[in-house]
Amino acid sequence: MSDVPERGSDRYIVISADGHAGLACEDYRPFLEARHHPAFEEYLAERMAHREESLKFNYDYIMGWETDNEEGLKGAYDPVVRNKELDADGVAADVLFADADAVTGVASPPFGAGLFAGAIDDPELAFAGARAHNRFLAELCSHTPHRRGGIALVPITHDVPRAVEEIEWVAAQPGLRGIMIPTMWRSRPPYGDAVYDPVWAACADAGLPVHTHSGEAPMEEYGDHTGIYLAEVVWWAARPAWHLLFSGAFERHPGLKFVVTEAAAYWAPDLMWKWDQYMGGGHTTKKMAALLQGKVSKLPSDYFGTNLFIGASTMSKEELRRRYVIGTDVVMWGTDYPHPEGTWPHTHERLRSDFGAIPVDDTADLLGLTAAHVYGFDLDQLRPIAATIGPSPDTLGQDASLRSDPQARATARWWKAEYGVVPPA
Amino acid sequence: MSDVPERGSDRYIVISADGHAGLACEDYRPFLEARHHPAFEEYLAERMAHREESLKFNYDYIMGWETDNEEGLKGAYDPVVRNKELDADGVAADVLFADADAVTGVASPPFGAGLFAGAIDDPELAFAGARAHNRFLAELCSHTPHRRGGIALVPITHDVPRAVEEIEWVAAQPGLRGIMIPTMWRSRPPYGDAVYDPVWAACADAGLPVHTHSGEAPMEEYGDHTGIYLAEVVWWAARPAWHLLFSGAFERHPGLKFVVTEAAAYWAPDLMWKWDQYMGGGHTTKKMAALLQGKVSKLPSDYFGTNLFIGASTMSKEELRRRYVIGTDVVMWGTDYPHPEGTWPHTHERLRSDFGAIPVDDTADLLGLTAAHVYGFDLDQLRPIAATIGPSPDTLGQDASLRSDPQARATARWWKAEYGVVPPA
Repeated sequence: MSDVPERGSDRYIVISADGHAGLACEDYRPFLEARHHPAFEEYLAERMAHREESLKFNYDYIMGWETDNEEGLKGAYDPVVRNKELDADGVAADVLFADADAVTGVASPPFGAGLFAGAIDDPELAFAGARAHNRFLAELCSHTPHRRGGIALVPITHDVPRAVEEIEWVAAQPGLRGIMIPTMWRSRPPYGDAVYDPVWAACADAGLPVHTHSGEAPMEEYGDHTGIYLAEVVWWAARPAWHLLFSGAFERHPGLKFVVTEAAAYWAPDLMWKWDQYMGGGHTTKKMAALLQGKVSKLPSDYFGTNLFIGASTMSKEELRRRYVIGTDVVMWGTDYPHPEGTWPHTHERLRSDFGAIPVDDTADLLGLTAAHVYGFDLDQLRPIAATIGPSPDTLGQDASLRSDPQARATARWWKAEYGVVPPA
Repeated sequence: MSDVPERGSDRYIVISADGHAGLACEDYRPFLEARHHPAFEEYLAERMAHREESLKFNYDYIMGWETDNEEGLKGAYDPVVRNKELDADGVAADVLFADADAVTGVASPPFGAGLFAGAIDDPELAFAGARAHNRFLAELCSHTPHRRGGIALVPITHDVPRAVEEIEWVAAQPGLRGIMIPTMWRSRPPYGDAVYDPVWAACADAGLPVHTHSGEAPMEEYGDHTGIYLAEVVWWAARPAWHLLFSGAFERHPGLKFVVTEAAAYWAPDLMWKWDQYMGGGHTTKKMAALLQGKVSKLPSDYFGTNLFIGASTMSKEELRRRYVIGTDVVMWGTDYPHPEGTWPHTHERLRSDFGAIPVDDTADLLGLTAAHVYGFDLDQLRPIAATIGPSPDTLGQDASLRSDPQARATARWWKAEYGVVPPA
């Protein structure tokens, strides 16, 4: 049986490439070594003070969200509740990042070891927080592991040998399928530095995709100007992609996969265009092409779909319109459950509103098949689940006979012809 | 008489929004105070060693360029030669940034005070180098000042009161029409900091647009991976634009103009889309809109064309296709004379190849009228020059009856309708 619907009633296998899991802060205590408890009490007090502050400014919104969704929010740590919520949303499996509470941040790993790990000074605390979360996550994901893509925290910037040890532990846990590294390296070596080669080698060997997830940014440069944060946060999350690519990491580790998550996808086509152009696309860049020798052996855009992927979460309509140039083998949809800016608990409605005009084969890729490939989900195990709970072309209001246009696909990366770019010799 | 050609033989007034001027390094000596001469001799020795290195790797390219263009390259500092080269290229006036030698960097202001000013540690040297270049530039631009848009160097990051003094001096020089600030603030206050308000006020008062120009980037993070530099350099140049916008600088200084130069323009539409969306474009950003209160009073995209401009140099065909969404009142063409990646000495050919299908009114804006508005060039003085040397619809192979499509213009910023974004209350 094909995983691309052939009739209107056939179901899609939806794999959400962006979800979050986490305990209420204080519940991480048993996962932490006792010697870190004093530092943890300090961290907890800070977190709760932060929550009090947030409540002062935004009480109605916060309490409304938490009260209306009290039961479903427990899926952040309770696997039975999580499956129930996934089922109701039509999602067969999901990928789990840290920081389940995006509203007041009280379901974050100890010491901020989740989305803001780069900002931790002490390597001991960075690893203690990460390891506490990873042990909780492994427990959560050992329940129905075929429906889980747990993304473990590994602060590679803080200690490469310890990072490699943790990666080897992660590789053995059922339901853990990737690692997240700090978005920012700050004063530590940048990701193009060869010091990280043991990390990339370990991840390539274990088939664990490496992620950044949006969140961290140089807040100290923003003052109280939130607009600046919004304008930059996506760039900081995506930045490691070109540091890996142009430092030759994918040449030295051809099996390495890097995924940028919840940092949108609209930016990918223009980057591909400009990057490919460095390879000899005409007069303006003539003086530079020679400088890329030995770093890349293909056109930069050709690393997308083999080494570079995008977990775009709840894509915009414009990103769906750009799907061929971004690549339906590159970009993955996600609900962002249980964050309030995501589609949960209204995923069916959102899919219907955005995917009505999208061909079924593209829809199947974007909603699940690309994620299955990236994370190694077993479709044989997910198919029976999807057959009961998944959306179908009919429920999405699609014309089930509509298929991808091969010509539109083939010419989507327009600059290849316009600039006559060719792979490096 | 209209400045938009009505017949095929009418000439365009071309104002190149990106050119470079500079002395051979050692010729800056007389413009430097004697107390800086010892530091200058050290700097010179470094520069010459750098040139020797470059020659080792790239002798044929460098010597070929310098020999073939020996006479024309003197226009970097000789106003008579410059006018002759502008005439031959069909350019009525041009905007002059520092660092005339983009090949081996031996026409850079002392101490790297041009495109890499942010990297200078000692404020004394930063200002000494800037002032030396500015005195040379004022002399150059005092010759036929109506054809010159000199952009003075002001290292505002290094000393705000001295910067304001220098800006007041610049404002009084015929032919100086703007200032360039360091692209990177590095460890100094970021451009959203209120500490710079006296600078913005002085520039707004004097009608001097503030610029960044691509070049500087955090090289210390790139190792020998040139591809990373290429992938980021545009972002670092553009970055101050959103720091000014979202810190409210254009609200406090409505007359302030900021121009990003030689950092392309392709990125502007997506930034406008995302920025406008923060203002209330739907579910995903609902939790953020309130945080922008008081920083902006219009939609972010509406600051383009009043406060934000782009000197895109030799635009790509794709950027020309995106001209309505970027704004023909925003983006300005330039030759980049005398850099080898620019169009000089083949500007007519390049214009013919790129502008053949562009309507004449758009062409007139892109090639000159927008720059005249931004920099306050006197069109009455430029018209007779252009009437002799400028390109015409006929020489560009255009259909002189073709005019801009008002409907395409009006709907180019598609997200306004799709997201129903509205200006802040």
